[in-house]
Amino acid sequence: MYLDTGSIMFNFLSLYGLRRILVVGLMTASLSGYAQNDLIWNSLDPENTVYMVLREGTVVIQLNPTFAPETVKKLKQLLEDRFYDGTSFYRVIDGFVAQGGDESDIDGSQATETLKAEFEIDWPMKPEDPEEAKNWTPMSWTPVQSGDMFAAYTGFIDGFPAARDDEKAGKVWLTHCPGIIAMARNDDPDSGATDFYIVIGQAPRYLDRNLTVFGRVVWGMDVVQRIKRGPALDNGLIEKDLERSWIRQMRLASSIDPDQRLNILVTDTNSDGFKKMLKERRDRSQKFFYHKPPEVLDICQVPIPARLEKPDVIRR
Amino acid sequence: MYLDTGSIMFNFLSLYGLRRILVVGLMTASLSGYAQNDLIWNSLDPENTVYMVLREGTVVIQLNPTFAPETVKKLKQLLEDRFYDGTSFYRVIDGFVAQGGDESDIDGSQATETLKAEFEIDWPMKPEDPEEAKNWTPMSWTPVQSGDMFAAYTGFIDGFPAARDDEKAGKVWLTHCPGIIAMARNDDPDSGATDFYIVIGQAPRYLDRNLTVFGRVVWGMDVVQRIKRGPALDNGLIEKDLERSWIRQMRLASSIDPDQRLNILVTDTNSDGFKKMLKERRDRSQKFFYHKPPEVLDICQVPIPARLEKPDVIRR
Repeated sequence: MYLDTGSIMFNFLSLYGLRRILVVGLMTASLSGYAQNDLIWNSLDPENTVYMVLREGTVVIQLNPTFAPETVKKLKQLLEDRFYDGTSFYRVIDGFVAQGGDESDIDGSQATETLKAEFEIDWPMKPEDPEEAKNWTPMSWTPVQSGDMFAAYTGFIDGFPAARDDEKAGKVWLTHCPGIIAMARNDDPDSGATDFYIVIGQAPRYLDRNLTVFGRVVWGMDVVQRIKRGPALDNGLIEKDLERSWIRQMRLASSIDPDQRLNILVTDTNSDGFKKMLKERRDRSQKFFYHKPPEVLDICQVPIPARLEKPDVIRR
Repeated sequence: MYLDTGSIMFNFLSLYGLRRILVVGLMTASLSGYAQNDLIWNSLDPENTVYMVLREGTVVIQLNPTFAPETVKKLKQLLEDRFYDGTSFYRVIDGFVAQGGDESDIDGSQATETLKAEFEIDWPMKPEDPEEAKNWTPMSWTPVQSGDMFAAYTGFIDGFPAARDDEKAGKVWLTHCPGIIAMARNDDPDSGATDFYIVIGQAPRYLDRNLTVFGRVVWGMDVVQRIKRGPALDNGLIEKDLERSWIRQMRLASSIDPDQRLNILVTDTNSDGFKKMLKERRDRSQKFFYHKPPEVLDICQVPIPARLEKPDVIRR
């Protein structure tokens, strides 16, 4: 799913060496503990990266064709058609979701053909046929939690938060964590078409396996959080077009001049550094913790570090 | 904790009757299901309500003197002294916390005397002495989940999300859900003083029982979400003062002319309507659910409806 440009490794401890000494307290409990030296940073594949430009700023979305192949294919067609340019976030509930598109799912029309549900996939098992098995590569899985409240197992698959119902086989699906993007639908599971939502609040995990998650925000979640909210008690609907946040442009990165692309680097969730970070977040051995927390991790509360490289750093 | 102004009951189905027919799909999964007729709405006690005015808008915070008596007392003194006016949110990590104040916790100084930890309280048991028992009222508890990943039990106490380690006695504490406000501190549990943080992302429950939660945002969480973020990889610190979101004013509601106060009504979490809502969120019996979700509730994913009444509606 990534263009791994040599698995660039960085040491930016120097960036905040002194600060780190001063900034104790609450932050000890967040990002300061992990072994950043062991993190591996991947570039995004421009064929599966979307830039969504709002007045509020630019949001970078990573698509997931492994879990939602047809939805991603359709989305790319819609992007090529510039379908989303000029559409808006018309239903936005703070702490829940920001839903955008052409409103076809609420005005009774149906802009284009609908999509088959892509809610989950079979865990890919090694083929029994020796010839097929030769070319087979297992699915990556960085375990996070067994006995999660909503699933038997949670973990990361190439940067995406996911869950499984069996450790060996069974189904696997992407979880509704903050920043995931999924197709809206009506009661019919196969009724998704064009309109999508981004999760902007506490993970609505009860939606897992009920909607097609097809990507996640890797950069610009602060921009997403500035999207204009609607009234929560009226389903978040913003009646007046002019009061909504609008999508100026939404494009596949590969359709944009390489000079105009953003060089976002995302932590490899398969890397030792990330696994160390998970361990440190589970152990919480810092002096700060007066009460040692239970040794559990909420898959949706694990940050996946990302950063934007300056163009002059990239193109040396 | 509330001024219960006659437990006003409302029926606002009429507000979105037609909309409700059109808006199916995702929203079936959110707020549309519950029996709004049975909700009871409470006014806020002006003695325990704070208005925080930012350029981004106004945030209304409900204080909790039951769980954090000394911290609330100190905060009221600070508000009277106009301590926070002109201070800023200097450390803001998207998906985690927005921390504000005078930066005394990071610049090495200590503006005022520190506060004793108020991380949890004993569950108030009925006094054995018959005389004392006469005047005793039990603590309210609206159960949400047993076997929550971070605690034996979760539930609501007068509008606040909370957790317990024993159903009968033991300790009880306020949980780190989005919108809660707590005192920042250094490694010493008793080192909190003036600077506070608001949780703005997926609940960092590992902080439960480790910091003094003293209130929650009941109105204006969309405003909080617009607070300027800092760089996540640099602990969220925003070096330049001018780039930060500033606190213009922070006042106790009772110190403000009654005509200038906001009439916020908050759902009573002890009411039958709220309990029905919890049941419906747990059952998820709507046709929308292709996969029936596990019958569990995340205490931090339960919305507590609130609304702002127009002044002319209030003062009839």
